[in-house]
Amino acid sequence: MSSVVRVVSFGLGPIGLAAARLALQKTTVQLVGAIDIDPAKIGKDLGELLDLGRQTGVVVEGDAEKALQRLQPDAMLHCTSSFMPMVKDQLLLAARCGVDVVSSTEELLVPEMQHAALAKEIDAAAKAGGISILGTGVNPGYAMDFLAVVASAVTFDVQAVKCTRVVDAGTRRLPLQKKVGAGLTKAEFQKQMATGRFGHIGMRESVALLARALDFKIERIEQSVEPVIAAEDLKTQFLTVKEGQVAGIRNHGYGYIGKRPVLHLDLSMYVGAPDPRDEIVLESTPPIHLKFLGGIAGDQATAAILVNNLHGVVEAPPGLRTVLDVAPPRLCR
Amino acid sequence: MSSVVRVVSFGLGPIGLAAARLALQKTTVQLVGAIDIDPAKIGKDLGELLDLGRQTGVVVEGDAEKALQRLQPDAMLHCTSSFMPMVKDQLLLAARCGVDVVSSTEELLVPEMQHAALAKEIDAAAKAGGISILGTGVNPGYAMDFLAVVASAVTFDVQAVKCTRVVDAGTRRLPLQKKVGAGLTKAEFQKQMATGRFGHIGMRESVALLARALDFKIERIEQSVEPVIAAEDLKTQFLTVKEGQVAGIRNHGYGYIGKRPVLHLDLSMYVGAPDPRDEIVLESTPPIHLKFLGGIAGDQATAAILVNNLHGVVEAPPGLRTVLDVAPPRLCR
Repeated sequence: MSSVVRVVSFGLGPIGLAAARLALQKTTVQLVGAIDIDPAKIGKDLGELLDLGRQTGVVVEGDAEKALQRLQPDAMLHCTSSFMPMVKDQLLLAARCGVDVVSSTEELLVPEMQHAALAKEIDAAAKAGGISILGTGVNPGYAMDFLAVVASAVTFDVQAVKCTRVVDAGTRRLPLQKKVGAGLTKAEFQKQMATGRFGHIGMRESVALLARALDFKIERIEQSVEPVIAAEDLKTQFLTVKEGQVAGIRNHGYGYIGKRPVLHLDLSMYVGAPDPRDEIVLESTPPIHLKFLGGIAGDQATAAILVNNLHGVVEAPPGLRTVLDVAPPRLCR
Repeated sequence: MSSVVRVVSFGLGPIGLAAARLALQKTTVQLVGAIDIDPAKIGKDLGELLDLGRQTGVVVEGDAEKALQRLQPDAMLHCTSSFMPMVKDQLLLAARCGVDVVSSTEELLVPEMQHAALAKEIDAAAKAGGISILGTGVNPGYAMDFLAVVASAVTFDVQAVKCTRVVDAGTRRLPLQKKVGAGLTKAEFQKQMATGRFGHIGMRESVALLARALDFKIERIEQSVEPVIAAEDLKTQFLTVKEGQVAGIRNHGYGYIGKRPVLHLDLSMYVGAPDPRDEIVLESTPPIHLKFLGGIAGDQATAAILVNNLHGVVEAPPGLRTVLDVAPPRLCR
C-alpha cells in the first residue's frame, strides 16, 4: 500500500471533482492528469476548478486517448456516467492503454445484470489489456449492499435482509436537494416523476448484488418512489420547502422470492429527515443489527471510497471485477 | 460460490467442532474428513462427537498426513492452536498435500508480527504447493479490527480508532466463564494472572492489523488486563459469582504514536456486563460511529466466519494471505 499510484481523473462532475480533490491530498496517490469533455473545463488547471487558490500543474484535457497514451498512468478515477453503454468506449480505451479503473458507474456494480454481453466484452478487453476495472461507490456499492454482505460473514444462515438509509437532504448540496424534488408541489413532482426523473440510480443494482452475494434465488426486483410531503415549512441553506410541498423522496427496492420481499432496501432522502443513519438488519442465525449512527456522509464518502480503492484495483488480477471479489476497501493515506 | 468445496476438519476442540457442525449443514461444503490428536476422539464418528443422533460417515483420524493424502480435500478448517510455531508442521503438510487452509490460529492474523522468518517459510511453502492459507476469526479477525478497516473505506483520513466489545459472559458457555475468571476471589485472580492466564489471545494482533491496514506508524503495542468485581451476587446457568468476587475481565489494547494511544481496543467480558455490543468509533473525516446492537455472538460467529471463508480461500491466489488481501467474507449456503 505504500507505493505511489499515478492516477488520472476521467470525468470532472461533482463526484469526479471531489475525488480529484481528495486524490491531491494523498501521499500514496499522485494525480498526473485530468480528462473531461466540457469545453468550459478543458485547458483549465484543476486548482482553478477546485478553487484551491493555487495551480496544481494538472490541466484538463479533452482528448482522453492522447492524455492516457502520453501520461501512462497506473489507474484512473472514472466518473462520467451511470450507464454501461455510455462508458463502454472509455473502458475499452483504458484496457488498450493498460490503465486500471475505479469507476462510479452504477451499472458496473453488477455488470452482467442488465448488460451481459457488454460485461463479457469489457471483461475480455480488460484481461487482454492486463487491467482490472471495478465499479464502486457508497450507494450503490457500500451502504445498502456491501455492508450487509460483510455482516453476513458472522452468520450461519440469512433468511432476509433489510437495509435502511436515511439522509437529511437539508444538510446536502443544492443539486441533491433538487434531485429529490425538494420544494416542488405534489403535482409538479408527479409530472416529473412520469419522466423517470426521481429515484436513486443503483437501487436495482444493490438488490442484485445482495442476491448474488448471499445466494438468494430471487425471482424479481421491484422498486417504488414516492414523495415525502413537508408537514411544516422547512428551510435549508439553499431553499425553502413550504408545508404541503415535496421535501424529498422515499425509495424502496425489493427482491422477491414468491410473494415475500426477502431483500428490502428502504432509502429516505428528504429535507428534515429525522435520525439520519444507515442500518442493516439481517434476519439470520444469529441475528444481526448494525447501525452507522448519523449515517454515512454521501458525497464525501463516495469520493473517499473511489480513491480508497485505487491501490486495491492496481493489485487485483485483470478483468472486470466487483466489490465481492477484490480485497476489501480501506483508507489509503 | 455455487461449486462444492470438499473439506476436512483439522482440530476438534470447541471451535473446531462448532465449525464442523456448521459445515455439515452447508450445501456448498462437503465435510469429507476429520482429524484430531485426542485418542478419546479418534475412531469416533463426528455425529457422535456432535451429539447429532446420527452417523455422518466422517470418522475422526489421528494421522493427518494419511488422511489428507487419501481424501485429497480442497480445503481444511484448521482449529488446533493459537500459536504459529505450534501449527507450522500442520500448515507445511497442507502445502505438501495441496489443501487450502482457513485457520483460527490467532497469530496468523498478522503472521509477520511475531514470527517474520516463519511467516516467510510458510508463505513460500504455500506458493510452492499452490495453496492459500488464511488466519481469521471474530476476535481477532473481525469485531475489533476488520470492521474498523472496512469502515475506514468511506473516510478521507483517520486520526484514531476506538473499538469497544462488550460480552456478557453470563450468556456464554462455561469454559468462557472460567476463562475470564468468573467466581474467583480477587486474590486467586491475581495469582493466576501472574501466570499470564487471563487476557484475550489476539489483542496484539488486532492492534497490529489496524496499524498495518490504516498505515498508522505506531511505535509500540501495550495491553492491560484487570478483573471486574461483582457489585452484587450474579448467577449464570453454570455458576454463581458472589458480590466482591471476580465477574470477568476488562482487557485494553493500545497502539501508541508517542504518548498518544491512536489505536484503542477495549474488551469487556464479564458476567452481567450491561449493553453487550460491538462498537467502532473512527476519529476521522467524516467521523464514523458504527454499532452492532447486542454484539456479535462469539462462538457462533467464529464457527461461521471460518466456514464462510472456505470458498474465498479456495479462490484466493497461493500464499499466506490475510483478511486484508482476500475477498471480503460472506455467507456461504
